[in-house]
Amino acid sequence: MTFFTDRAAFEAALNVLPKPDAAAVAAARARQAQLTKPLGSLGRLEDIACFFAGWQGRERPAIENGRAVVFAGNHGIAALGVSAFPAAVTAEMVANFRAGGAAINALAGAAGLSLEVVPLDLGRPTADFTTAPAMSEAECLAALNAGAAVVSDDLDLLVLGEMGIGNSTAAATLAALSYGGTGTDWVGPGTGIDAVGLARKTEVVNLGLARHASAARGAFEMMRRVGGRETAAIAGAVLAARLSRVPVLLDGFICSAAIAPLAVAKPAILDHCLAGHCSAEPGHRRLLGHFGLEPLLSLDMRLGEGSGAAVAVGIVRAALAAHNGMATFAEAGVSGAS
Amino acid sequence: MTFFTDRAAFEAALNVLPKPDAAAVAAARARQAQLTKPLGSLGRLEDIACFFAGWQGRERPAIENGRAVVFAGNHGIAALGVSAFPAAVTAEMVANFRAGGAAINALAGAAGLSLEVVPLDLGRPTADFTTAPAMSEAECLAALNAGAAVVSDDLDLLVLGEMGIGNSTAAATLAALSYGGTGTDWVGPGTGIDAVGLARKTEVVNLGLARHASAARGAFEMMRRVGGRETAAIAGAVLAARLSRVPVLLDGFICSAAIAPLAVAKPAILDHCLAGHCSAEPGHRRLLGHFGLEPLLSLDMRLGEGSGAAVAVGIVRAALAAHNGMATFAEAGVSGAS
Repeated sequence: MTFFTDRAAFEAALNVLPKPDAAAVAAARARQAQLTKPLGSLGRLEDIACFFAGWQGRERPAIENGRAVVFAGNHGIAALGVSAFPAAVTAEMVANFRAGGAAINALAGAAGLSLEVVPLDLGRPTADFTTAPAMSEAECLAALNAGAAVVSDDLDLLVLGEMGIGNSTAAATLAALSYGGTGTDWVGPGTGIDAVGLARKTEVVNLGLARHASAARGAFEMMRRVGGRETAAIAGAVLAARLSRVPVLLDGFICSAAIAPLAVAKPAILDHCLAGHCSAEPGHRRLLGHFGLEPLLSLDMRLGEGSGAAVAVGIVRAALAAHNGMATFAEAGVSGAS
Repeated sequence: MTFFTDRAAFEAALNVLPKPDAAAVAAARARQAQLTKPLGSLGRLEDIACFFAGWQGRERPAIENGRAVVFAGNHGIAALGVSAFPAAVTAEMVANFRAGGAAINALAGAAGLSLEVVPLDLGRPTADFTTAPAMSEAECLAALNAGAAVVSDDLDLLVLGEMGIGNSTAAATLAALSYGGTGTDWVGPGTGIDAVGLARKTEVVNLGLARHASAARGAFEMMRRVGGRETAAIAGAVLAARLSRVPVLLDGFICSAAIAPLAVAKPAILDHCLAGHCSAEPGHRRLLGHFGLEPLLSLDMRLGEGSGAAVAVGIVRAALAAHNGMATFAEAGVSGAS
């Protein structure tokens, strides 16, 4: 499927972002005020219900067709020793996703989500961005479209995750291009690299910044020059979801860094997104601060795959269960506040 | 059922607290190290799985028979204007629980828990503790036993909640007796009282402290003098659960304050407890700090009923799904870290 025919079509889509259904939000807010509890006492659960009402366009939103998607990509910079794991693990983990043995399989199952795995040209890693742009324009566009292709109008929730050895280094570079700073500011241990590896990651980020900072103007160019196929796919999925008003739960540092270039270009792109969790990866909290998003969970998770966002789906389901299932004061014959 | 035959039996039980099954914890830890993810990358989910392994005594714990219990009680101090809601709401909400219309009905349902509602002599409020002990020794013992009665060996998770107009004032007094401080340190808006009401709550706590502080030595005496039937029942349930090695998820400020006297007397009483969430009620975070418990959720909830703990069950289910459902590196043929 070609959702974005060219770079201009992608950039144009960023300028026609739909808004939530204000009438549905107002109806949901009014309902919350009638339910048998002090108003506000369910805290963020009340806000989550109203958020879903707005994007699903109905007073009583539901998750009947929620999907988790894991995009996988390989990175030229993986050859530079930026990960504790060999690059072969990306394909091995895709096989594990398909066999049902990974964390996201178990967590998507527990959350009642279907799971789609999208490997992106694993045999053809991106170029090493310390020496060249990671992707050609056509390659980046193909990745964006692969992301957009997972979105359909009938989805009522999209959980986005990724897998790609080396991609926390690419994510740190995307974050630094988007919000400033150097490798030191954005690099973390990822899957668990040692101090020597951490220094190598930092240097790779700084080399990437030195090579691309001046040319990487605009979201597309940032994603193309230092991102991966899986991070571009996440950006394409978030934008396509917005055009279909499908609410999105973001996962950790890499997933968030994937849309940082979009958020800088157009902060409203985040309006249909919730931050599922805050990762243990140090840059993630800072990134969420730039986004103005408060994570639903902080459980020191740092796996990726969409795992943190999948756990957060339990909170969303709880919020909707309370919103839809509770009686009003009038229905229950309960006295209100004096 | 008479679980605690007298005060001495209750105090004796606090001195024979069983420990978790160390072999099951070790087996679960070893399993976590083999699953297809970097060790530690699922953060607290890994710890939760091992916690349940220890208390359930098996490498692969499960929640097949989890129960939420809401204890309800009425308070003499409710007549002093310490709540935004009239005391009649306690019984009205019990009817709402039974009809299935309250938040905990929806949230227990979403969490896959059975729900038990235990009203405790609602027609006979405790005595106004500003002028007398809230309960006689026999009344406090009856409430402890009503709490213990909800525990059975076949439970694999117990979620504890409460309902009682006026009970955030009783809880603040329990917290102050347990950890020091005055009304100002522990009183908050509860269901949403205004500034005048807040000042009244603070004064009621201080009057209670002035009357009982010197005589309230020991857990039983603290619970009896300023607690409610529902807070004593929670304490009885936590202790009985421990003797049966049933893991407990604590709810908010009132549920936590209910066991503060036990925690002061015997800090190890908390070992089979997880803090489901941190309430918006200001004293709760401080109470959890005294307990040394890090809450699983912080969603600005402040309803009680066990609602926050019920939402946290989703995290526990996710933790156990990953722990039990994931493949090992060997099973999946995935390469380990280099």
